[in-house]
Amino acid sequence: MATKMKAAIFIEPGRIVLGEKPIPDIGPLDALIRITTTTICGTDVHILKGEYPVDRGRTVGHEPVGVIEKLGSAVQGFTEGQRVIAGAITPSGQSNASLSGCWAQCGAGTRHGWKAIGGWRFGNSIDGAQAEYLLVPDAMANLALIPEGLTDEQVLMCPDILSTGFGGAESGHVRLGDTVAVFAQGPIGLCATAGARLMGAARIFAVEHVAERQALSREMGANEVIDFAAVDPVAEIMRLTDGRGVDVAIEALGTQATFEAALRVLRPGGTLSSLGVYSSDLKIPLDAFAAGLGDHKIVTTLCPGGKERMRRLMDLVANGRIDTAPLVTHRFGLDDIESAYDLFAHQRNGVIKVAITP
Amino acid sequence: MATKMKAAIFIEPGRIVLGEKPIPDIGPLDALIRITTTTICGTDVHILKGEYPVDRGRTVGHEPVGVIEKLGSAVQGFTEGQRVIAGAITPSGQSNASLSGCWAQCGAGTRHGWKAIGGWRFGNSIDGAQAEYLLVPDAMANLALIPEGLTDEQVLMCPDILSTGFGGAESGHVRLGDTVAVFAQGPIGLCATAGARLMGAARIFAVEHVAERQALSREMGANEVIDFAAVDPVAEIMRLTDGRGVDVAIEALGTQATFEAALRVLRPGGTLSSLGVYSSDLKIPLDAFAAGLGDHKIVTTLCPGGKERMRRLMDLVANGRIDTAPLVTHRFGLDDIESAYDLFAHQRNGVIKVAITP
Amino acid sequence: MATKMKAAIFIEPGRIVLGEKPIPDIGPLDALIRITTTTICGTDVHILKGEYPVDRGRTVGHEPVGVIEKLGSAVQGFTEGQRVIAGAITPSGQSNASLSGCWAQCGAGTRHGWKAIGGWRFGNSIDGAQAEYLLVPDAMANLALIPEGLTDEQVLMCPDILSTGFGGAESGHVRLGDTVAVFAQGPIGLCATAGARLMGAARIFAVEHVAERQALSREMGANEVIDFAAVDPVAEIMRLTDGRGVDVAIEALGTQATFEAALRVLRPGGTLSSLGVYSSDLKIPLDAFAAGLGDHKIVTTLCPGGKERMRRLMDLVANGRIDTAPLVTHRFGLDDIESAYDLFAHQRNGVIKVAITP
Amino acid sequence: MATKMKAAIFIEPGRIVLGEKPIPDIGPLDALIRITTTTICGTDVHILKGEYPVDRGRTVGHEPVGVIEKLGSAVQGFTEGQRVIAGAITPSGQSNASLSGCWAQCGAGTRHGWKAIGGWRFGNSIDGAQAEYLLVPDAMANLALIPEGLTDEQVLMCPDILSTGFGGAESGHVRLGDTVAVFAQGPIGLCATAGARLMGAARIFAVEHVAERQALSREMGANEVIDFAAVDPVAEIMRLTDGRGVDVAIEALGTQATFEAALRVLRPGGTLSSLGVYSSDLKIPLDAFAAGLGDHKIVTTLCPGGKERMRRLMDLVANGRIDTAPLVTHRFGLDDIESAYDLFAHQRNGVIKVAITP
Repeated sequence: MATKMKAAIFIEPGRIVLGEKPIPDIGPLDALIRITTTTICGTDVHILKGEYPVDRGRTVGHEPVGVIEKLGSAVQGFTEGQRVIAGAITPSGQSNASLSGCWAQCGAGTRHGWKAIGGWRFGNSIDGAQAEYLLVPDAMANLALIPEGLTDEQVLMCPDILSTGFGGAESGHVRLGDTVAVFAQGPIGLCATAGARLMGAARIFAVEHVAERQALSREMGANEVIDFAAVDPVAEIMRLTDGRGVDVAIEALGTQATFEAALRVLRPGGTLSSLGVYSSDLKIPLDAFAAGLGDHKIVTTLCPGGKERMRRLMDLVANGRIDTAPLVTHRFGLDDIESAYDLFAHQRNGVIKVAITP
Repeated sequence: MATKMKAAIFIEPGRIVLGEKPIPDIGPLDALIRITTTTICGTDVHILKGEYPVDRGRTVGHEPVGVIEKLGSAVQGFTEGQRVIAGAITPSGQSNASLSGCWAQCGAGTRHGWKAIGGWRFGNSIDGAQAEYLLVPDAMANLALIPEGLTDEQVLMCPDILSTGFGGAESGHVRLGDTVAVFAQGPIGLCATAGARLMGAARIFAVEHVAERQALSREMGANEVIDFAAVDPVAEIMRLTDGRGVDVAIEALGTQATFEAALRVLRPGGTLSSLGVYSSDLKIPLDAFAAGLGDHKIVTTLCPGGKERMRRLMDLVANGRIDTAPLVTHRFGLDDIESAYDLFAHQRNGVIKVAITP
Repeated sequence: MATKMKAAIFIEPGRIVLGEKPIPDIGPLDALIRITTTTICGTDVHILKGEYPVDRGRTVGHEPVGVIEKLGSAVQGFTEGQRVIAGAITPSGQSNASLSGCWAQCGAGTRHGWKAIGGWRFGNSIDGAQAEYLLVPDAMANLALIPEGLTDEQVLMCPDILSTGFGGAESGHVRLGDTVAVFAQGPIGLCATAGARLMGAARIFAVEHVAERQALSREMGANEVIDFAAVDPVAEIMRLTDGRGVDVAIEALGTQATFEAALRVLRPGGTLSSLGVYSSDLKIPLDAFAAGLGDHKIVTTLCPGGKERMRRLMDLVANGRIDTAPLVTHRFGLDDIESAYDLFAHQRNGVIKVAITP
Repeated sequence: MATKMKAAIFIEPGRIVLGEKPIPDIGPLDALIRITTTTICGTDVHILKGEYPVDRGRTVGHEPVGVIEKLGSAVQGFTEGQRVIAGAITPSGQSNASLSGCWAQCGAGTRHGWKAIGGWRFGNSIDGAQAEYLLVPDAMANLALIPEGLTDEQVLMCPDILSTGFGGAESGHVRLGDTVAVFAQGPIGLCATAGARLMGAARIFAVEHVAERQALSREMGANEVIDFAAVDPVAEIMRLTDGRGVDVAIEALGTQATFEAALRVLRPGGTLSSLGVYSSDLKIPLDAFAAGLGDHKIVTTLCPGGKERMRRLMDLVANGRIDTAPLVTHRFGLDDIESAYDLFAHQRNGVIKVAITP
């Protein structure tokens, strides 16, 4: 086996380049997987732009599909050669946070066992998936076998996009018969729409301007797609709900405008489920918040991870309950990842998600 | 029976005066109760100051203890002369909101059945309890019999203070062994502290400067009382939790400073349970919110009402699980209610709550 | 208006006959609706057979679709002539049970406000819907407007079948990616299957022998239909789940055999959601229950009612999320209801549900 | 260090004897702790009597307090010499069950990741704590540091009794103001009573005959103790609740009689929370179950484990919210453990729990 590999490396704000790194050495609890397909996430673009800070020299990417190349000495229950994915978030399962069911905030190694965003390691606190090989920490908790018959692209959305989007619907506690609004229909927003439909929403209003995304939104389950460039989405949603508002509003962009609109369309007692990665302080307008007396809830969700979550998502794919194939609009080799970033960051050519194959 | 009664009336911002009004006529679903004891709430002070808008001429007050004087023609299950309380919030039980379990946002009479803060009628959308008589709407849902042996003052906190304070702990889902912070130890904050203790918090940090309130706070269950004038409460709570933060932070004042501090002391995945009545927009600082990735929850609670809630609270009082008697620090006749407002609004003489008796 | 009406009356075990009764007088909180379509439920067959006791002379039926004929003097928010349904369960909204969110066990009129099965009044404790006219108690809580454009038959399953079947999935807390088993695919079991699919189950195993029901089951969302006459359903489900069992098992028949099988296919920590109306004691086998150490849950659900529940269900129908039209296999005039009972009770001619029109 | 140690070994039904065994070798994920205090559980008596099967030769006991003697090569975050406890249940944190939050049914090593009662390993599937040394599997998930200032006996109930008893109240979802019945006031029932009180029950009825246990029950929070030898507890509880029944009934013995009584005192919609280890099939009487229409819930709980659970329980002890010291009524050296079994199994001399010190 070679000792070097190609990897997409964050050099400085504005620059992610394809470079060379040593293939990782693994510890007793880790696994090494050979990446067969990966992708670029909106968060990677935040990193590229310097809006979300990671160390210089970090390999980016957190959405791995691959094959087990090597297992740490203490890892049991897997064999080399198995096709697997790992979630974007890789909890240890053994921290106080994990043992509280708060896996994404896993603080393994801290004194008290909690760390904000601690479960997100790939391409954040350790090297990531846009490379030929990837070290998966706490492999027993994080390697998820791909069911027979599923292609890489069919499961490529599971590690992050699908888990996060569904998480928005789940944290919002969408119930049978709910009316739901989803703000922004990028990859995560589209999966939030699909999640709201899968959980039994009666009506889903999606807010999006881009034509391709509007079409996909309907495919994913939106009853009405509202173009914010054509109408005021708050007024339109209040009109469509006869002045009542929605039970759950999902924010899937990460801006004050969408956060605030999501709050304004909530019925009293409704839940704003926020998925966006924000880059500035947020404002809660007094009137939209009923002065604090409206029984409103605001919840945030970091992508749920761990092998059981991945198993569930892949089971939904395998049984045809969800099909994320239409989201993969472009394909690149790893060698061309810089072009892929260029396309994706500028949302050119109707791109939704790209598949990257080393 | 007389046809006129005394009542504390909101005239204009800055003026609540004792005046005279007709004793209310009741409809088929209402009850008329003769007030035996009532009290003044911080929200009434907001009304007095013009910070929370109500119609001029409105009788204020929403914390009634009294005796059934008359029952509407369609009201069953009660008899005149029974001692009762009614919650500050009087849901119809029959609106879409009520039938969703969202009683406080009851929109009886609206097209769709929801109304923000709609359940709060006394002293807000209809005349209130600081009077000799009070019309209780939807009497079958709202009259709660006082258990034998309890005095007016023992149950005087149930309609609002206790229900709201406990609601803060409940909406925060305080669990056995949790660490909780409560910001401000006014009447509601004190009851939130008591609620967190009753629900099984291991440690409760209360933030309060006033000496009398600090002492009561310990009595209600706080392990540590932090004087924000002496130390930075955020730094102190993080120190006391070894950098971890609290599981639940309860905001019981209604200011940006306490809201923000409550957010800053949360552990990842924790819940900010807000009880305050705010009078301006709120800011969520990006760092305290982990850019939206910290699995934080922000929940608000309007005082839970209805006769079953009142029954449960009075059952806790009757069985000695909670004693709110120490909160009643001053007593006035209804004729002296203007003096009572003056004392209460300026928090003079260590006042926590006043008892008003017509 | 006439003073007499036709009604299907329980005479004695074995006999429900079409007879004549006075059109009901209504009180201030009631409504009178003219039935346009109704149906027969499996529970009515239990009544017919004497397996579930009701008073002799009781008009049976609890699934009304109709038009408001008259409103009680205290009823607001509706007008005569509106097309409405009412749920099989008609909570008052104002009892202690209702105000606890336990609407189906509404004990309006009892001392303490709770009554087992108390919310089920139509055709049980008061006269029911298989008649020309129906008194709806607590009309404000129970009349639900039919959305424009929906036919009687499209909403005919909402009052009971759909609400109960969905309730089984809801009480079982079906989550995205769950594996679910549903025992029996009669009308309620079929709706439970549909509910599990709507809530995001990845895999649904339905157990049913009758060919027409097997076909409908697949249409409603079952991935696999298991014929208990051909294979042992417990062994088959354990095989299909690789020995793991299901997350949620829904019992929709009401027998020891299905109850026990549902328990045996549960994974540890899983939930048995029971919908059946039982007619004898049940046995929990020690081994299937892991001696009480398996973190199993057994939950039961009486049909959720009230106008908000009906609104939600009709909204799902109106938006095409669920189509129960295929369940209506036969149609009868009210004059022929005895024939309808004969067909339905003996499950002849592939009957699933019948529509009865006065 | 010696290579042999003393241990209480299950020889055959009727015989647990003190014998000698090798001190365990540990793997990379394990820890070896030197036991300083342990105790005997009712479940051990079941094992002794042959009512719960374990392999012959198994060291029994699952309630360890001790000092870290040695850490596996892959274990981080602990140091030798630290005082620790481990829960009776030792989840891996990394199985599918654990990653679903169903830690007690941890199926580490199985194909699908679930195993009924799989989290209970000590004294069941691996050697237990009634010995000089104990191997703790998945040490990072299971070692919990004892807070400074707490004695062994103060935390001795945390691994099982307190966690299980509290678990009964938690799984029953005891809410502020609930009325709760607890059947049997042995060690677990007493902790269930304490848990119900800590979670905010207004009234707790405990059913117990033994005088010492009745006294302790009141100390732990029972309002009324009902002696089943003097009155019928079902009739008495229905009388005390005015015919309504209780919100939550906790079964803490493991017999048909208590299970059935717990069901019979439930209000409609109430929860039977079962903690008992049963040794025969259970019967659900049709009437007590309202034919399946009473919205009843039956839930079971295996002792919650893992280091975070232990941390929370010890935090409650450290802050004086619970004091289990009165439960330790007798003390023995490990050498005398056979006498301890004799005393405990026959409930002689008012024994509640014994402390065993090697």
